[in-house]
Amino acid sequence: MPRVALIMGSDSDFPVLKSAVETLKQFGIEVEAHVISAHRTPKRAEEFALGAAGNGIEVIIAAAGKAAHLAGVLAAHTALPVIGVPIKSSAMDGLDSLLSTVQMPDGVPVATVAINGARNAALLAVQMLSLRYDDLYKKLLEYKEEMAVAVERKDAALQEEVAGI
Amino acid sequence: MPRVALIMGSDSDFPVLKSAVETLKQFGIEVEAHVISAHRTPKRAEEFALGAAGNGIEVIIAAAGKAAHLAGVLAAHTALPVIGVPIKSSAMDGLDSLLSTVQMPDGVPVATVAINGARNAALLAVQMLSLRYDDLYKKLLEYKEEMAVAVERKDAALQEEVAGI
Amino acid sequence: MPRVALIMGSDSDFPVLKSAVETLKQFGIEVEAHVISAHRTPKRAEEFALGAAGNGIEVIIAAAGKAAHLAGVLAAHTALPVIGVPIKSSAMDGLDSLLSTVQMPDGVPVATVAINGARNAALLAVQMLSLRYDDLYKKLLEYKEEMAVAVERKDAALQEEVAGI
Amino acid sequence: MPRVALIMGSDSDFPVLKSAVETLKQFGIEVEAHVISAHRTPKRAEEFALGAAGNGIEVIIAAAGKAAHLAGVLAAHTALPVIGVPIKSSAMDGLDSLLSTVQMPDGVPVATVAINGARNAALLAVQMLSLRYDDLYKKLLEYKEEMAVAVERKDAALQEEVAGI
Amino acid sequence: MPRVALIMGSDSDFPVLKSAVETLKQFGIEVEAHVISAHRTPKRAEEFALGAAGNGIEVIIAAAGKAAHLAGVLAAHTALPVIGVPIKSSAMDGLDSLLSTVQMPDGVPVATVAINGARNAALLAVQMLSLRYDDLYKKLLEYKEEMAVAVERKDAALQEEVAGI
Amino acid sequence: MPRVALIMGSDSDFPVLKSAVETLKQFGIEVEAHVISAHRTPKRAEEFALGAAGNGIEVIIAAAGKAAHLAGVLAAHTALPVIGVPIKSSAMDGLDSLLSTVQMPDGVPVATVAINGARNAALLAVQMLSLRYDDLYKKLLEYKEEMAVAVERKDAALQEEVAGI
Amino acid sequence: MPRVALIMGSDSDFPVLKSAVETLKQFGIEVEAHVISAHRTPKRAEEFALGAAGNGIEVIIAAAGKAAHLAGVLAAHTALPVIGVPIKSSAMDGLDSLLSTVQMPDGVPVATVAINGARNAALLAVQMLSLRYDDLYKKLLEYKEEMAVAVERKDAALQEEVAGI
Amino acid sequence: MPRVALIMGSDSDFPVLKSAVETLKQFGIEVEAHVISAHRTPKRAEEFALGAAGNGIEVIIAAAGKAAHLAGVLAAHTALPVIGVPIKSSAMDGLDSLLSTVQMPDGVPVATVAINGARNAALLAVQMLSLRYDDLYKKLLEYKEEMAVAVERKDAALQEEVAGI
Repeated sequence: MPRVALIMGSDSDFPVLKSAVETLKQFGIEVEAHVISAHRTPKRAEEFALGAAGNGIEVIIAAAGKAAHLAGVLAAHTALPVIGVPIKSSAMDGLDSLLSTVQMPDGVPVATVAINGARNAALLAVQMLSLRYDDLYKKLLEYKEEMAVAVERKDAALQEEVAGI
Repeated sequence: MPRVALIMGSDSDFPVLKSAVETLKQFGIEVEAHVISAHRTPKRAEEFALGAAGNGIEVIIAAAGKAAHLAGVLAAHTALPVIGVPIKSSAMDGLDSLLSTVQMPDGVPVATVAINGARNAALLAVQMLSLRYDDLYKKLLEYKEEMAVAVERKDAALQEEVAGI
Repeated sequence: MPRVALIMGSDSDFPVLKSAVETLKQFGIEVEAHVISAHRTPKRAEEFALGAAGNGIEVIIAAAGKAAHLAGVLAAHTALPVIGVPIKSSAMDGLDSLLSTVQMPDGVPVATVAINGARNAALLAVQMLSLRYDDLYKKLLEYKEEMAVAVERKDAALQEEVAGI
Repeated sequence: MPRVALIMGSDSDFPVLKSAVETLKQFGIEVEAHVISAHRTPKRAEEFALGAAGNGIEVIIAAAGKAAHLAGVLAAHTALPVIGVPIKSSAMDGLDSLLSTVQMPDGVPVATVAINGARNAALLAVQMLSLRYDDLYKKLLEYKEEMAVAVERKDAALQEEVAGI
Repeated sequence: MPRVALIMGSDSDFPVLKSAVETLKQFGIEVEAHVISAHRTPKRAEEFALGAAGNGIEVIIAAAGKAAHLAGVLAAHTALPVIGVPIKSSAMDGLDSLLSTVQMPDGVPVATVAINGARNAALLAVQMLSLRYDDLYKKLLEYKEEMAVAVERKDAALQEEVAGI
Repeated sequence: MPRVALIMGSDSDFPVLKSAVETLKQFGIEVEAHVISAHRTPKRAEEFALGAAGNGIEVIIAAAGKAAHLAGVLAAHTALPVIGVPIKSSAMDGLDSLLSTVQMPDGVPVATVAINGARNAALLAVQMLSLRYDDLYKKLLEYKEEMAVAVERKDAALQEEVAGI
Repeated sequence: MPRVALIMGSDSDFPVLKSAVETLKQFGIEVEAHVISAHRTPKRAEEFALGAAGNGIEVIIAAAGKAAHLAGVLAAHTALPVIGVPIKSSAMDGLDSLLSTVQMPDGVPVATVAINGARNAALLAVQMLSLRYDDLYKKLLEYKEEMAVAVERKDAALQEEVAGI
Repeated sequence: MPRVALIMGSDSDFPVLKSAVETLKQFGIEVEAHVISAHRTPKRAEEFALGAAGNGIEVIIAAAGKAAHLAGVLAAHTALPVIGVPIKSSAMDGLDSLLSTVQMPDGVPVATVAINGARNAALLAVQMLSLRYDDLYKKLLEYKEEMAVAVERKDAALQEEVAGI
């Protein structure tokens, strides 16, 4: 069973990240979630990242706000792919989190998704895992189809609204 | 042999992207490179993305500038992981390319790296592929070690410069 | 009867876009509205754009938020004029949507209006159509006059408020 | 013969705008170009805009930098469609010009293209005119095809470069 | 009696601007307030600006949001000093209004104050008028003293709050 | 007993700054708090800064919003370290306060913390004072440990929440 | 003879400011120029501002870059109108200077012109002085006319260039 | 003898940082300089920070660009004060480095100076050390005086330049 770790810098970010857990479980992926702060528990961050591959983790999702170093710190200590989710905090409308996550120097990439893009972080993890687990690729194609169908249903519903204007 | 496609919106971006090709080849990965524009050759973009998985492509890297839709358009048509490289263009210092690449809506992620971050796009592709090809994981650990050694060598060289002040 | 298509990336954008429908109808223009996502229903987007001219559409208005590719994707597949409305989403205060819509590369323009500028998108469509339908030009001149009168009425009302200070 | 006016706030912007003139002429469109400043020659701006429709102008392109009011000022005085080209000036990397051009209030739209996007302003004018002049629509389809062919030629050329790495 | 005109692009901005009227009246300055839109009533804007000096206006304050052209348009038609107040609107947090107001080209200055800085616009007008009306200069010095006293009173009140922690 | 001054430009900023007072007191540091405006009470600002060292102040924390000159003005008049806290105000999401505080010219540094980062300003003051007061260094190490323990407790609590999904 | 002071935070800004001196002299205004730093020579700044009115200065122009406090500091110590010129420095493209200059708190306005807008600062000073010196108002009207003529001359020159395409 | 460590993320930043070494030496402070990357040599960063206090380091200056995590990573592992210098890199004009350095979460402050503000980082370190080493405080006062004298000398030189216009 494929396994993803979801690390968040603060438990206050969990409401934003819940959809990542749901999406991963929906694809039958085991999720290990932790509150680990790059700045308040740096030892723990290092130990987690160094041990991740050995503990069966295959992809790491890291979410943090402001000077969002968490994804970068984990990526520094592991060769596993690390997905970064910039969390919108109380100032700068998420731009600080985005730039701190994505603008990584040569040698240590972080796969960054949109500000508060928890669901997409999960889907990106699934896409990565589908390179190894063939059934996930099929499930992704189905997921894409369901999304398309949902949009078409909304399109149908819109017709009535517009007709009423 | 693992296989990555590197798609660029304009051939003028190739000098920035050359390091991606070099890095991928250095890891023994086959690279297929193309100039495909999301806006000028949309059919070609669609066909490429739809056929990519069938043609043995496992990861797609897409690089574009300004209203950088290329990575998103490819991701819309494939379930393969798509890595986006925002290219710095003549205005807005790369912010337009970054936001156009990373701020994808729910359902269709693009794994975004830094502005002009071609080498990191390649390394991220290698990390993804290492989920399937075990030897790549070992090579990544070696790469990390070599980077560390290079930094330490620069640290040694710095001592002389500082002593001279 | 002139005909405009209003395409939105998500039905949640409709409250912002309602004024576009109202304005177009006020000018006697037939409106065809759809929810089509550049990323979740890319095939549908392509088919719509390719068929638009043949189906009697003369101008397309496309509204989307975040990495707002919708207008650009439609413009890639049609030679009809495409008007882009950047939708303000939950982060970045609309700057991401604006840059993703307006910063189009050479060859494929999108006529971009203000963030959430739905009414102006409609008026711009009317201006374009007035090149062909002469009566629309007269209606636009009347619309301009009515706007001026409304401002003057507000100016009169202001005098009392200011006198009371 | 269709007719477009190209108005620039300063003659120093002409090098950026030359491609607009070339593109319009390439499509067989008559171009009338003027240096008119919204701030230094406001009377002239008003007279030009008020007389434009009567003088056979069908679309106006207005290009200006910094607090770029030119397009908005012209649009205030005419019901013709006005296309705005934000010019990148010496500070703020074009963001000031872009926001001053695109963020128009309800009632007076400006069809804004990318920063320094002169060629796209011309193409957008052609698209608008194609609503009236059917042959322009055919020429636009050809233009799109030629662009696609040019990209494919560049793609072919790229193969050699990549093979050499 | 000195005389200032306060022009606003929309009556919805009046709540922000009320403090300007109050401050001017507090200094014994006559205020003439108007809703005039640079884009919806351009003729009226021109006439007002051309006639302002002749009608006894000595300083003009102009407040507008988004692509805030009002101050610049008035300044184009008069040699009186024009003070610009960028109004914060629903997107871009006021940056669009600020840049559109302050980034004026050589030859036509607008004296710009802070976003929503209505009171400071009034005080700046008083400072300008004090060049001619000597008593205003004395009143400004008193105003400065009262501000200082008010701050010191707040400082005293703070001591209790801090002591309670 | 070590002594820190906390200066705020406006008493309306006190709710944001309360945590600084609490944190300093928690470390056994005497706090002197004042409302002093760089612009409304410039004399008072100068006198305070000139007298601070003589009055036993060892570190100054200065908090202000918008064109936040307070920290810089105090730093101009004293050789004590000055910590700047940019306060988020009603427009520009704190970017104005941050840039006005941090971008000091050569010769007069301000130690800037995050937007609204009052607690960190206090901790930075404690770190500076720990260079002189050895017991503070030990308390800082304990504080770091307590933070780490708190994060681990939150991590434990998270496990239940995640299990429930 | 009217008198203006031009204060710059650094002599390296003088090349940008030269046009202000030229413009003021062209209008027959006496200019007193000084290098005074708000941060390196705060006493001097205070003394200058406190003495300015008494020394016959009627308007102050202050130019500075980065955390540009100079105009605000002078305005804090005088009731004369202070015009701020934000200087573009080596980072942030002038945004830091602009926000530090314009975003002044209630009570102490700075009349801000464009980034590097030295000539406009001079013209704004002339406009202010024209409230007192009637001949300046006439000269300003002439200046405006000359600007308009210059634009028209450029327009004529443009016709040849465009004809050659 | 007081001791400061200057850590840079890349040796290519040394030209910017040289003035920090010079300034520290000018104040008689011993400088230990190192190239340590938070991402490429994370172990080394941790070891350095953990050992810094024991090795006699009293203040740490950390300089890095882009997603500048270096200062934050060091601050996570030590209770010594850490000064952060955001380095301007090839895109985003230093905004990424600034936000990544300054926007630290509660509990782990970084004393941030201006973009490329190496000299100020050194002066801030001296200010901190002056809390313990009394002679440094005197030297800082002298340094401030010399700066003031230098500005006055430049003011004198300016007079000739201005007279020549």
